This record gives sequence, C-alpha cells and structure tokens, in this order.
Amino acid sequence: MKPALAASIALSQLGRRAAPPTIARLMAMALEQPGLLSLAAGFTDNTTLPVAELRTAIEALAARPSEPEFLQYGTNQGRPPLRRRLAARLAAMEPSLDAAGLERHLLITNGSQQALYLAMQTLCDPGDIVLVDRPSYFVFLEMLAGLGVRAVSLPVDDGGRIDATALDARLAELARAGEAERIKAVYFISYFSNPSARSLTEAEKTVLAETLARHGLIVPVVEDAAYRELYFERPAVASSVLSLPAWREFPRFYLSTLTKPFASGLKVGWGVCTEGAWLDAMLHAKGHHDFGTANFNQALCDQVLADGTFDAHVRKIRSVYARKMRALHTALEGAGLNAAGWRWAEPAGGLYLWLQAPRGLDTGLESAFCRACVEAGVIYVPGDLCFGDDAPRNFVRLSFGVLGETELREAGRRFVTTAKRFA
Amino acid sequence: MKPALAASIALSQLGRRAAPPTIARLMAMALEQPGLLSLAAGFTDNTTLPVAELRTAIEALAARPSEPEFLQYGTNQGRPPLRRRLAARLAAMEPSLDAAGLERHLLITNGSQQALYLAMQTLCDPGDIVLVDRPSYFVFLEMLAGLGVRAVSLPVDDGGRIDATALDARLAELARAGEAERIKAVYFISYFSNPSARSLTEAEKTVLAETLARHGLIVPVVEDAAYRELYFERPAVASSVLSLPAWREFPRFYLSTLTKPFASGLKVGWGVCTEGAWLDAMLHAKGHHDFGTANFNQALCDQVLADGTFDAHVRKIRSVYARKMRALHTALEGAGLNAAGWRWAEPAGGLYLWLQAPRGLDTGLESAFCRACVEAGVIYVPGDLCFGDDAPRNFVRLSFGVLGETELREAGRRFVTTAKRFA
Repeated sequence: MKPALAASIALSQLGRRAAPPTIARLMAMALEQPGLLSLAAGFTDNTTLPVAELRTAIEALAARPSEPEFLQYGTNQGRPPLRRRLAARLAAMEPSLDAAGLERHLLITNGSQQALYLAMQTLCDPGDIVLVDRPSYFVFLEMLAGLGVRAVSLPVDDGGRIDATALDARLAELARAGEAERIKAVYFISYFSNPSARSLTEAEKTVLAETLARHGLIVPVVEDAAYRELYFERPAVASSVLSLPAWREFPRFYLSTLTKPFASGLKVGWGVCTEGAWLDAMLHAKGHHDFGTANFNQALCDQVLADGTFDAHVRKIRSVYARKMRALHTALEGAGLNAAGWRWAEPAGGLYLWLQAPRGLDTGLESAFCRACVEAGVIYVPGDLCFGDDAPRNFVRLSFGVLGETELREAGRRFVTTAKRFA
Repeated sequence: MKPALAASIALSQLGRRAAPPTIARLMAMALEQPGLLSLAAGFTDNTTLPVAELRTAIEALAARPSEPEFLQYGTNQGRPPLRRRLAARLAAMEPSLDAAGLERHLLITNGSQQALYLAMQTLCDPGDIVLVDRPSYFVFLEMLAGLGVRAVSLPVDDGGRIDATALDARLAELARAGEAERIKAVYFISYFSNPSARSLTEAEKTVLAETLARHGLIVPVVEDAAYRELYFERPAVASSVLSLPAWREFPRFYLSTLTKPFASGLKVGWGVCTEGAWLDAMLHAKGHHDFGTANFNQALCDQVLADGTFDAHVRKIRSVYARKMRALHTALEGAGLNAAGWRWAEPAGGLYLWLQAPRGLDTGLESAFCRACVEAGVIYVPGDLCFGDDAPRNFVRLSFGVLGETELREAGRRFVTTAKRFA
C-alpha cells in the first residue's frame, strides 16, 4: 500500500459532493462593491430586533429561585415546557389537533434548517428523489444536492398553482422509468413561500395528496411553515397537512421556526412528526449531531412566549415588513418595471418579491443582466437557483427583509434602471 | 406498484440504523427510582453556572451603539471576532502556531459534538474504520455506529498508555485482512479524557503518528480537547497534534468546546482543520445542517472572553471540580473500595473517575451489580460502553460533574456498599 498524501485526503461520498454554495459567489461579488444594496440576503430586519425583550427575559430567568438549569445541558428532543407551549399554540391554530399528542411528537432543532436536514437524512439515500414545490427554497435544493438526492418539481400552471393533470403525467412518467420507488418524500413551503410569497390553498394541498395516493405514493410529506407567522394583515387560511383529511394516511412532518419572526440570531426551530419510527430516527441523528439544541436559547424562547413579548414583537414586525414590502413594491411599480415587461404579485406575507422577467432575459448569476445590476449597486437572488429541475432563467427573488425603506426604494430604483436597459 | 403503508415508512440507510442510545435505558431506570443519585450524567456543575457573568455580557452587547446584529443571522463558518480570539488563545498556548493561519482554518460549531459529527460525516462511508482511543468517548462511539462506521481500538498497555508494539501488530493484521484502506481517521481525547481522565503524553502522540506513518496510514487525525481547560491545578503539558512535528504530514482537526467549562447550555464548540479540502467539506455540510451556529451565543462567548469573565469563571470552577473529585475519590477510598479489589487513579482534571472492578465482576447495564446499584440509589455509566471493540465488562465511569460534595459522598458510600456485597 502506498502512503496517502495529505494533499489528496480521502473524503467520504458526502464530503466529495462538497461545493461552495452558489450564493457564495454572489456574496463575494457584493464584498468587492462598496455601497452595494443587497436585495439578495435572506436576513431579517436589523432595527426591530427585540433587545429589550430579551434583556427582560434573561432577568426573569435569572430571578427564578431554582438553580439556573437554563445554562446547563438540556435534553435531545427539546425543553419540555417549550415543547408543551408550541404544541398548545399549534393546536390553537388548528383546533382539530390534540395538543398532548403534538407535544409527544414535537422536537426542537437548530433553526428549521436542521429539521429539514434531519428529515432528509433519515429518508433519503443518494440517488433518491424528493418532489419539491416550484419554485422552491434554494438552500433546501442545495442540501438535497449535498445528500446526492434528486429534486423533481411539482408541476404548476401559469398562475403558479399545483397542476394536478401535469402532476399525474409526471408521476406516470416516473413510474414508467422505474423511478417511482425512488420517490422518498414531498416537500413544500406552504405559507408565504420563499421565494414565491405564495401560500398553498387547501384545495391545492388536497389535490396533491389525492394525486400521490392515486399513484400509490403514500410517501412522507414535509410541510415547511417557516413564514406562517409572517403575514402582513391576516394569516393564510389553509390548514396544514396535520389537519387536512386527504393527508391522514401519509407520514407527516410539519416544521417551523420560532426565531425568524423574532431574533434570527437565536436559531430555534421545531417540528412535529406524526410517524414514530421516523421521529425516532430523526432524534437518533440529532443525538449524534449535537444531543440537543442550546438549552439557554430554548429557555429564552419559552420565556418570551410565556410573557407575551414574542407575540407583541411579531405583531410589530408584521407591519414593519408590510411597509418595507410596499416601499420596494411601489418603487418597482413607480419606476416602470411593469412597462418594461416584468410581472409580479404583491405578497400578503413573507420576506420576498418574486419577479418574472420578460421571456428571453437571462437573470442568472453569470448573465450580463446580473453583472449590470452589481455595477448599478444592487444584487438579487437569481431565480434559476430556486427550481428543482427545468429551471427557467427569467426569474428574480428580491428580499425586503434587511434593508430599511429608504434603501429599499433606492435599491428598487437601481434595479428598474438596469431592467429598462435590458428591455 | 402497491401502496406503501404509513406504518412501514421507508427510511434511509442511516435512518434504519437508528437505535435508542444505550444510556437512555439507564436514564429510564433512574426516573423510576426517586432519590437516586446519578454518577452517570455527564452534566456540569449547576451551582456555579455564570448567571451574573451572562447578564453583564448581555448588557454590554445591548449597550453597543451599533445595530443589534448579535440577534441577527451570522455566518456559516462562525463570527469573525470570535474566531480571531479563539485562534489567538490557542496560539498563546502553543507558541509555534500562527494565529492568523489558525483563524482562517477555524470553524464554530454547535458544541464540540457537531465538530465531531462533521468530521466523521465528511470522512467516512458505511463500512469504513476509525481508530479510537481505549477507552473512548461513548457518544462518539454511538455516533460512529449510527454512521455505519466501525471503531477499532488503539491498543494500550496495563498502565493505559498507547502500546506501539501491539498497534504495529494490529495495523499489520488489518492490512493482511485487506482492511487498511478502510481506515479513514484516528480519534482520541487527549486531555483529561472522558472516561479515563488520562492525558496523552507527547511521547504517546508521537509514537502513534510514527507507527501510522510506518504503515503508510497518513490518515486524518481528530484530536478532541474538550477537557483541556478543565485541569485542577496545572494544564497538561503536551502540545496538540497541531504543533507536534510527527503529525505534520497528517490532515489534522483539533476541536474543543467553549461552553462545557462555562455554561453548557450555550453549546458553542469550535475546531481548527489544517486541510483545506476537508474544512471546505465540513463547512459545506454545516451549511446544510444549520448555515451557522446561533450568532447570539457566539456574541456572548466573544464578550465573556473579551471582558475576562470567561477565564475568571474557569479558574473558579477548576477548584470546584477539584474539590468535588476529591469528595468522591476519598469517599470511595474511605469506605474501602480498594480493599474490595477495585483500582483507579486520582485524576488531575476532567469530570470523571474511571474505575476498574475486580476481574470477573460484570458491571454492564444488564448485570446484577448494575441492578443492585440502582436499588441502592446510585447509577454510573457501565465501562463496556466506552470501548470501540473487545470491551471488558469490569469498568465503571463515575462523574462528579453535577452532584454537590455531600451528595457525592453519599453516592460514593452507596456505590462502595454495593461493591463490597459483590467482592
């Protein structure tokens, strides 16, 4: 046997699939351009972060007469009072659900991202297929690639709604190709989606379940509700897969985040899994990842939920994000982006505008349009990153999460000026 | 194709390897026995947790004139000022190291556990082999099992020191069996180990590197320094693999935790990886796990390192743990455990006593001795869980981390009373 060289380290299959996230190139571009305004970053609003609320919460924890166990290791599944409270909140939103049952099936994670990772890691081997919404969350798509898993889009109609007829054909095609057994899960963001800002209707969710069932695909469903609380005026009315009768026979994992609508730097997510064997497998994997999300962060979340500051903060930022969305939306409209042939819907929640450019305009990372935007001092997420397959090149995701209203207006102006040059 | 049933969910290979951690059975036993004293839990001291220090740190962060970005998302690799500070601290301990180089190769993780997971996930495929210290960290061994990876022990002599001659023979045997190429890494806890409380000498580390090199095994080394700061009176003198010349050609990952010796509920770990391709692969995987450890926790750690409260706290708890160790150690001695044929060394750091029972006494989870201890109101970690292979049944790990001195004395008395019944 010849000695290996340090320079040719033998990585695992997963290690060899490593590639820098596409978005890293965008970030690198951004760093080279001072004064650049980022409509790309998926960050949350910096000015409203709940500093006072957290100070109060920490004082309340410190004032407890018991030992300060909130600074001690916690449990792998998550802090019991927090799990109880989250279960009760979900049951309050969807009254057909039983809070005690939810609590048993609920785990706390390092942001909702870890919940997604655990779900995929325990379901998929390399070469497997996951059905994804169209467009979908690009970090999730990159994770699938990292796990060697193939994304197949759920077909949509021109209005972006799930197209049951096209889905029927797609599933039949996969079955003919001998690939139906490779389908291990279906994934979608159902409330104020990243990137489309759309919410799925109950009818869409139901037809999806019925179509899958008709093809014998009673596969696990992962419903990502990360933006459910981030509506502007009223919540999306659709119930989740946990309540909808059409999904009853499916293994279901409903997940969300506590800290995106509060303080993203705390990174606490959670999920409810209806299937014991799957939940056990995820807990087993989590035990190996970290044996439990930071107990202090969970204690803080529990405290701000208990004292009402979490809900008060979320109410406040809903109107902040609504104003910021409108600042960007009206800047685009006012500067004439529609007249340049672009189309988008005004969102009712979430952190994104999802823009369709005129057919034939390439908005990809290496495109002339993207370079021109960087030169004009504005960046966005190229929409082609947000498709599991068959990616059109003429979409753009704009985030209004982090910039202030004035900056958003200026960024919008720069964007439209560039778009008009390419019209 | 027949419809799958929800009850027979198709899990991935990793998902199918899920099994409850062995220790869970011990915890379940403990819950059924009120008044039981746990010498099993690897928790840290509850009474000295740095509540005041953290309140001060949070006030300092809140008082900064800049936007409260510590409550915002951070970066995947970790907060730059914290990485800089950790690199400088390590360079101060091992002056041959270059702080700027360390900083570039340093990543922040969800406790040191995630660093271990990332290392193994990016190096090992199922069926691969990792060489491990003997005894080794049982959570690490369970993680290897979860990844389908086989642990092979580094042979030790009667004094617990790495036995180069036996290692030579073991490696030759693996080569003859055609398994040498399956060896993907070597792992050890080198400072006040969990469970043995031993520190590796520089001579042991060097002979290990030389033996591996002689067999052409320039494989990645993972040095776990989680307990390096938790010495009682003076630090272990050995340098790490980052400094030792014999390891220079090996890909090296040195990892530790900030929060075990401070506030384990914050769960912030870190590692330095000398090999770019391996580090990139770990960062890629971390991007998919969670795209960055909670930024707030990192900001708090950076603040307590900067204002000196971290070091002051660690100095304080060193003497607390030293006293607690002595309380348990003298309780065992005083009650006559030596006379009953048990052997152990008084540790110079860490959180554990590692006891060798008389040959022939089975201390395993299902043993009569273990049941008798539970009945007597005391639990421990059976030593056989701490061996990668060829596990002897007559070892016991006792933790003095969480109980107070009075409880430790009582737990020790219960343990010895039981041991004498089995002598």
